[in-house]
Amino acid sequence: MPEGITMIGEQIARVIESKNTEFPLGTNVLTHAGWVSHSVSDGKNLTKIPPYPKGVPLSLALGTLGMPGMTANYGLVDICAPKVGEVVVVSGAAGAVGNAVGQIAKFKGCKVIGFAGSEEKVTWLKELGFDEAFNYKTIKDLDATLKSVAPNGIDCYFDNVGGEFSNTVLNNMARLGRVACCGAISVYNDTKPLMLPAIHGTLISKEITMTGFRVVSYRDRYPEWIQRNIQWINEGKLKYKEHVTKGFDNMFDAFMGLFSGANTGKAVVEV
Amino acid sequence: MPEGITMIGEQIARVIESKNTEFPLGTNVLTHAGWVSHSVSDGKNLTKIPPYPKGVPLSLALGTLGMPGMTANYGLVDICAPKVGEVVVVSGAAGAVGNAVGQIAKFKGCKVIGFAGSEEKVTWLKELGFDEAFNYKTIKDLDATLKSVAPNGIDCYFDNVGGEFSNTVLNNMARLGRVACCGAISVYNDTKPLMLPAIHGTLISKEITMTGFRVVSYRDRYPEWIQRNIQWINEGKLKYKEHVTKGFDNMFDAFMGLFSGANTGKAVVEV
Repeated sequence: MPEGITMIGEQIARVIESKNTEFPLGTNVLTHAGWVSHSVSDGKNLTKIPPYPKGVPLSLALGTLGMPGMTANYGLVDICAPKVGEVVVVSGAAGAVGNAVGQIAKFKGCKVIGFAGSEEKVTWLKELGFDEAFNYKTIKDLDATLKSVAPNGIDCYFDNVGGEFSNTVLNNMARLGRVACCGAISVYNDTKPLMLPAIHGTLISKEITMTGFRVVSYRDRYPEWIQRNIQWINEGKLKYKEHVTKGFDNMFDAFMGLFSGANTGKAVVEV
Repeated sequence: MPEGITMIGEQIARVIESKNTEFPLGTNVLTHAGWVSHSVSDGKNLTKIPPYPKGVPLSLALGTLGMPGMTANYGLVDICAPKVGEVVVVSGAAGAVGNAVGQIAKFKGCKVIGFAGSEEKVTWLKELGFDEAFNYKTIKDLDATLKSVAPNGIDCYFDNVGGEFSNTVLNNMARLGRVACCGAISVYNDTKPLMLPAIHGTLISKEITMTGFRVVSYRDRYPEWIQRNIQWINEGKLKYKEHVTKGFDNMFDAFMGLFSGANTGKAVVEV
């Protein structure tokens, strides 16, 4: 990002002044105005947030009922397409996307193995029903850990981190495995490209499919996924957690927490 | 491969003695007996070769109507699923698989760009109708070459070679591109793994799918593909070329030609 631009960010906003009958006063909308307390819109980049059932907080429009929840649906259900009894590994498992992925995989009948970056997160993943959860910062040997919890190989890998970690997971995939490449947070701040062993041979010998995706390309399917997630929330199958930072001035610290691993669940700033 | 075992290889054989009514004297079969002039079978590993239409040589059971032809069908039609007007790149394009891939992509309405390892092969690819064909051993700058012939990016890449070459192609894929990982001949003889820049970020930002495959997993579809290829051959759409080495004793040289790039089309040894 070039210096001097408004930092990007998605937000829930309430219309407090309007000349547009489509968005009357008091309407709750999703917008991408960035790190600002107030913004002016011609209505083009606003998405109305539908009324949620009682007990479902509005802030979920940024999490389980927003982009992260949509990402979990597309990446897990469409790309990984896990079958009952399959082994699913999720990295960044305590994040807004990862925890939803793990929960959905679990109630679809899979064995779910999650990796996150603190003991607190690992405890939470186990509370959510993950079969296995590990602190990737403290396990001694990722390869040996994967071989012990998935001796027949990993069928689906939902990848939020990229880098060396994902390379080790790839080497432990089962035949016909599927990898949903969602994020590569481990390398976003690298100034030169990370070098890894070439993967072509592994992809071929194990007949693996790796799919990189950006969920915004499937906006037309959001309504279907939102309804599905609301239903799963109501049935108690899909739980959520938010890491709420209060105050506009604390936005920077909240953002940096994404890289240091300070957040469990969806990171939200309440202004 | 461990020392001392019979070298692997697929062959067309004729039954010259039989106690099995399913395979009477004179039956032509496909078998994997390896580098031997004669073999004994209980019938389990034999596949009968159906009679081909007049003018279609039996040896195609090893090429366009055999595993390479099946590979081209699955990898291109099923995995890449190219649409009219899309750009398809094929490496190892003058091989048994690659030339069929390029021809099929061409009559499906794509712009086809092939890479092979000699001027003779490049000339043949152009005769086959490839829009562009290059000798990868002599082009100065693969990245610049790809950018000039595919300025809007590559939609489909049928990868027979792996390694650095494929990494450069990957960096020139278009959004929603598809890569069929069929072979990695460039690294099969490496004693230590080739290190390449991590690809997760590229897969995500461009929403690319890479699929490694082994066509033998789709044997149940061979009859459908064989009929389709025979039809394309009869319509003059799908041409073939064989690089025939004569004599059992020349098997070794024929095999080494796979690595030195001596063969144009399917390498066959006539015993």
